Parts: sequence; C-alpha cells; structure tokens
Amino acid sequence: MPATITRREQNKTAITGIPKELAVKAGSRLEPAPLDPEQVIIDLTPSPKTLPSLENFGFGENKTDHMLVCTYDSITGWAAPEIKPYGPLSLDPASSCLQYATSVFEGMKAYLGPDGEIRLFRPELNMQRLANSAARVALPQFDQDALLTLIKRLVTVDARWIPAAPGYSLYLRPTMIGTRSAFGVTPSDSAILYVVCAPAGPYFRSGVKPISLLAGGEGVRAWPGGTGGHKVASNYSPGFVPQIAAAKQGYDQILWLFGDDRRVTEAGAMNFFIVVKREDDENEIDIITPPLDGTILPGITRSSCISLLQSHSTDELTLSHIPSSHRIHVHERILTMPEIAKWYSQGRVLEAFTVGTGVVVAPVGKIGFEGLEIVFPKYVENGGFGPVTKGIMERLLDIQFGRREWKGWSVRCD
Amino acid sequence: MPATITRREQNKTAITGIPKELAVKAGSRLEPAPLDPEQVIIDLTPSPKTLPSLENFGFGENKTDHMLVCTYDSITGWAAPEIKPYGPLSLDPASSCLQYATSVFEGMKAYLGPDGEIRLFRPELNMQRLANSAARVALPQFDQDALLTLIKRLVTVDARWIPAAPGYSLYLRPTMIGTRSAFGVTPSDSAILYVVCAPAGPYFRSGVKPISLLAGGEGVRAWPGGTGGHKVASNYSPGFVPQIAAAKQGYDQILWLFGDDRRVTEAGAMNFFIVVKREDDENEIDIITPPLDGTILPGITRSSCISLLQSHSTDELTLSHIPSSHRIHVHERILTMPEIAKWYSQGRVLEAFTVGTGVVVAPVGKIGFEGLEIVFPKYVENGGFGPVTKGIMERLLDIQFGRREWKGWSVRCD
Repeated sequence: MPATITRREQNKTAITGIPKELAVKAGSRLEPAPLDPEQVIIDLTPSPKTLPSLENFGFGENKTDHMLVCTYDSITGWAAPEIKPYGPLSLDPASSCLQYATSVFEGMKAYLGPDGEIRLFRPELNMQRLANSAARVALPQFDQDALLTLIKRLVTVDARWIPAAPGYSLYLRPTMIGTRSAFGVTPSDSAILYVVCAPAGPYFRSGVKPISLLAGGEGVRAWPGGTGGHKVASNYSPGFVPQIAAAKQGYDQILWLFGDDRRVTEAGAMNFFIVVKREDDENEIDIITPPLDGTILPGITRSSCISLLQSHSTDELTLSHIPSSHRIHVHERILTMPEIAKWYSQGRVLEAFTVGTGVVVAPVGKIGFEGLEIVFPKYVENGGFGPVTKGIMERLLDIQFGRREWKGWSVRCD
Repeated sequence: MPATITRREQNKTAITGIPKELAVKAGSRLEPAPLDPEQVIIDLTPSPKTLPSLENFGFGENKTDHMLVCTYDSITGWAAPEIKPYGPLSLDPASSCLQYATSVFEGMKAYLGPDGEIRLFRPELNMQRLANSAARVALPQFDQDALLTLIKRLVTVDARWIPAAPGYSLYLRPTMIGTRSAFGVTPSDSAILYVVCAPAGPYFRSGVKPISLLAGGEGVRAWPGGTGGHKVASNYSPGFVPQIAAAKQGYDQILWLFGDDRRVTEAGAMNFFIVVKREDDENEIDIITPPLDGTILPGITRSSCISLLQSHSTDELTLSHIPSSHRIHVHERILTMPEIAKWYSQGRVLEAFTVGTGVVVAPVGKIGFEGLEIVFPKYVENGGFGPVTKGIMERLLDIQFGRREWKGWSVRCD
C-alpha cells in the first residue's frame, strides 16, 4: 500500500498514544478512532488580530484568529482535534482535493443575541448535510454531535469576532478535503476536516437593492445522477463563466434552468421562491419552490422558509406584513419559466425571493428570460420587499438572533 | 478590493523588480507580466531521494525530486517561475481551489528513447487543453510555449527519474489551482500553476488482463452545458462512489452512458473504441468512438488513434497485426449500448479498447449492460489483444519512445 506511506510520513499525529506504525501492524484488531471533542488540543494565538471595522469587510474576507483542524486516516481514524491559530494548510501538490475536487463544505452562522448569548441556527442540519456530502465523494464519516461540540468550542474561542451590530454575524465554513497524494483516480483514504470563520455583514449594506436574475444561459448547473443535491466543491467553479456572462448582460445572478421544459432549479447559489395569486381569487396565494429532485441543494434556509410559511397557513404563527385576508399555500413542485412568464402576462406574479445562509432572504427585482423582462412590483414602503418576503425574512432573523424562540431551531453555543 | 490584500501579503514575490505595492499604484500603466521561462529560478534539492525500485511503484505514488511552481496575480501577472525541491504547497484554508474546485490539470509523459533522448508526446496539445480547461473555470491564461519550455526544463532536471526499462516513463501532472481566499462564489483572481512528476510503470505489469466495464450505473459523468469536455478537477470525485459500486459487482471501470438512448461516453477516465465487422462483408471493419459533443474529454491518445487508423485506412502507414484483407473505416459518431448489444447478438463485435495517457491502450475483456455480458474474444496469441488493439498500441508506443518518427508527434526535451 505505498500510497499511504507519503501521507503517513507527513502526518505523524498519533492518536490514543499508539504510533501509526504499530496501528498498521495491529491490522484489524485496532478500530479507527472516532472524532472525539474531549481530546481537543487548544493552542491560542499569541498575537490576536485587530478587529476589522464594520464598514470594511465583505463576505468571508477577514478570517478570525483560530481554526478547527481534524485529520483522518483510514487506518488510525480521527486524530485529536486541534483549535489553533488561523493559518495556511500544508498540502501535497498531488492531493486528491486539488486534483480531483475531493472537497465538500457547509455554510453556517453564529449570531449574538440581545441577551448576549451566541446561537447557531439548526446546526444539526448542517452536520447531517456535511456527512451526506462527504459520502457523495467517498470522504469519511464522522460523529456529527462531536463536530458540533467542536464548532461550538471554536465559536466560543473566537467570540469577540461576532459583531454586536444589528444584522451582523460570524460566518462559519466547515470544510472536508481529501488528502491522498497519488494520481490514481480513486477515493481518498485520508482527509482533513476543518472549520474557519469570518465575520459577515448584512447582505444589503446600503439599502435594499432587489437582485436581478438571468434565467438560463449556456451553462447547466446540475443533472440527475450528478452532485447538484449535495454541497460539494465541484458544483461551484463550473458556474463562474456563466456568471460572468450574466453580469455582462447586467444581471446579478443566474437563475439556473434544467431540461426541455426550462424548469427553475437554483438562483446563483441560493434557493428560489415565487409568490403568485390565483386567477379566480386574489386572496388565495400560492408560494412555490422547486422540489428536491437531486439537482437542487437542500437548503436549510429553504426548509425553514417552507416550514414557517406552512405554520402561517395553519395559524400556528402569524408572519408580519402578510395581509390577514391572504390565504397562503406552500408548494414544493416543478416550476418552469414558461409558467412564470404566463402568470406574469396575467398580472398574477406578486413577489419572488431567494434564500440561503449568506443572504438569509433577498427580494428579486427582475428576471430576464429569452428577451422577456419579468419585473416585480416595487414595495417602496417596505424598502423593496414584498409582504411575504419581508414577513419571512423578519421572522427568520428574529429566530436566528434569539429574539424569538421557535421549535428549538436556535441553539445556544455554551 | 480587500479580497486581494490577504493574498498579496502571502505572496510577496515581486516580478521584474517592481514591488507589488508600486504595481498596484501604477494602475493600468503596468501590464500584468507574462509567464517567462527566462526568469526561472532553479533551486536544486540538497538531498536527492533514492530512486524507487521498478517493482515498487504504482501510478503516481513516488514523486521526483523537484517541481515547477508559477504563481499568478491578476494585477502583477505571472511571477518568476521556480523549479524547486518537491514539497507541500502552503494554501489558505479558504482558497478557491479547496472551496469551489477551481482546479484543472493535464496528464503527460516523458519517455526515454533507445537513443538516450528524452521525448514528450504531442505536448503542445496538452498546453492547449490546459489553457481551455483554465478558461472553463475562469482561471488565467498563460503563454503555452513558455510553459512547455519550463516543463522541458523540469524534465531535464529530474531526468534520472525516467526509468530505462521498457514500457516505463515519467508521468507529468501540470495543475492549475485558484488561490483566492475569500468565501464569495466568484472567479479566483490569483492562481498557482505547478507541475509535478512521478515515474510510471507499464499498465499491465504481470501480463495483460483485459479490463471489464460496467455500462451505466447510477451516476452520470457529464452533461451538455457541464464540464465533461474539459480536464477539470470537478469531473473526477463525483465518479468515486459509482466506481466503488462497479467494483463491488466485479468490474474494473464504469462505461459511462448518457441520455435515454444510453449512448456511450467515456470508460472510467479513458476514451472508448469498438471494432465491428459489417453484416454483408467480413473484411469491412468499422472502428467507432463517440464524438466530442462536450460530454467527452478530447483525449490526445484518442485523437492520435483516430489519426493513425485513418492513415492505415488510406495506406499512408501500415499497422502491424491487422490482416491485410481488412479494410478499416474510422468513425466518430454516437454509439449506443443497445447498438453494441445488437451487433454482439449478430456475432459482429470483434474488439473494444480504451485509450488514455496513463494506460496508452488497454483491451476490453467484457462489458456488463443491464444483465447482459458482452464478452470479447480472447486473442491468446497476442496476450489478450485483438489485432487492431495490438496494432495501434505498438505503433503508439513506437512513436512515443522515439523508435519511429511520425509527423513530429514526438518532441525532444532538449
């Protein structure tokens, strides 16, 4: 098994006190070690950075002082996790992650509440999705509770980086990469699972500007049997060139379509919702998002929006801004651009919005589709938001920042 | 532009003697520097490795002593190239290549001829394809002649690593990765282009064993509008899980199919050819490979096989082993599994083979398809190879090793 020798030489971290050479000799009698938060080694930076001023940071450009690093080897399992100063990874040039895109990630946020408590939003869903993504590219599994415990620890260590200003949060990026360093096109038998953090401002810093979407274009983001339903690195760089082309036409993002029926999948790297009133009754409101058919990322914000809208429709809660005369119906179903164009020509399209961890909720201002411009009404009194978009965004932010409790979605970091 | 600050701090290499800070200030008056082989800095290792014994190396597991590293920044351009001791890359954990699979690569080989000369095989095609792949994921362009000059220099520096044994060569892996270190899903404005080398043995070390292919399976390798026609990292890790499933069923590789007509695309990470005799005349031989429709890698070995077979069919050259009574017809056209199954039931399928830089040419022993096993005749006298497979392989190796000259395909390294 010469492939593992280089790797083993590079990574001399022993676990449970047993040197790797012995572990190899012991063979099947030794179980690979699980990820164990109790073994965490914390090495605090001697030179904490100066916090950036709130005006000066974009999305994920200023990293915090520390990072979590956990290394895996198929023979010895997970080494003792480390929380240590943020810094570069040392990777063999032949590493599987660099050659074959053996890489998956998550996006999460830590929020500072008005009570001074730090909270994560439904983090167990990020752990589950990260495990699913890892399985999709044959990366190792891990104890999901253990990783969440370690992430909470990291956030606590870097707590001073969570801005207290309204709408700000700490963006977390758990990532797992394959580190096998040989050129054979085979799964990686070693990996690094790491988490880095960067403070994040509100998406709309200088007033809301609804986003514009170009439906279609030359690229196709995902395909049945592909990886569109998982958060794998390979879903993203192929979208850069189509995105540049859309920007040249004056659009912010691509509304990715699929198939001969031009069905809507994702908007940029976000999920998409549209709000339509019925032909026969203006108070019956359909809110539609495409179904999870394997070409669409199962967004946690998406799932939360569906759930909150359903709760509104059954009077379990009341979302602000939505007129009480409106009866809301939420649908996960195939949604095509020709349908949207038809509803638009009938004057029935009320709002559209995109959702994701980074943006939370963003109103859509227009959609370009085969020469047609679908322009959404401007809700000036709500700063560009339609009532459903505004109502769902406010409630989500209230839950995320710990201003309202809802079904245990917001989890304290202590 | 805060995204570039971190990067600029990490990469202090100045080009043309102008510090980067000045370059920034100079703005548009300063052109980004081109990749320049004359600026190469060669730093030889003080401790050359012991050469591995021929029996002990697999595919790409033993790296040579040195590597070529060229760094790029959208403001200053290409820094002075470096040939330096093989070693790990230092990468920010937020690097675009790790998060968004902003990574492309090439596979090439250097061959030691009977005259003691080192040769590359049609390397200008690898340079062109690398540039095309880079463009597909918005990575920077480079002077292709300059990179080839630098690769020749690297191969010369590590010449002792090219085994003199028959069938052995030095595998080269040019790679370009995006190194932008912020989380926004946008193109990378910085990159590293590097080349690493590993000696490679003949694919069939202990006698030929024709490969078995499972046609279909759950995964889809590529699709129109995707990246299947480019050598990007993202094409590979999504195939690991389907590959594991095929291996569990006893097959070596997947024969990737696409679409409702079950058309053949690639075999593992190789191109596929099939040899079929005509119904009405056993001496009319059709050799078919799928067309470059954007879902198939434009293989350099594939293109060379097509060209050599065409030359055989027009009597420009004569491939050994192919009976002189056979009239060869080469086709790039859609090829479906139901077609192959039909020809097989008619007793018309003679041979199939896969081609690629690593394998050169490999005979196919069987194809599993929806419960059917298409078993290829065993050519015992040729060690498992049918006459076309054997003839094309021998001629390719003759050209690659410099034993026969052909249209300038084999390029000396000096």
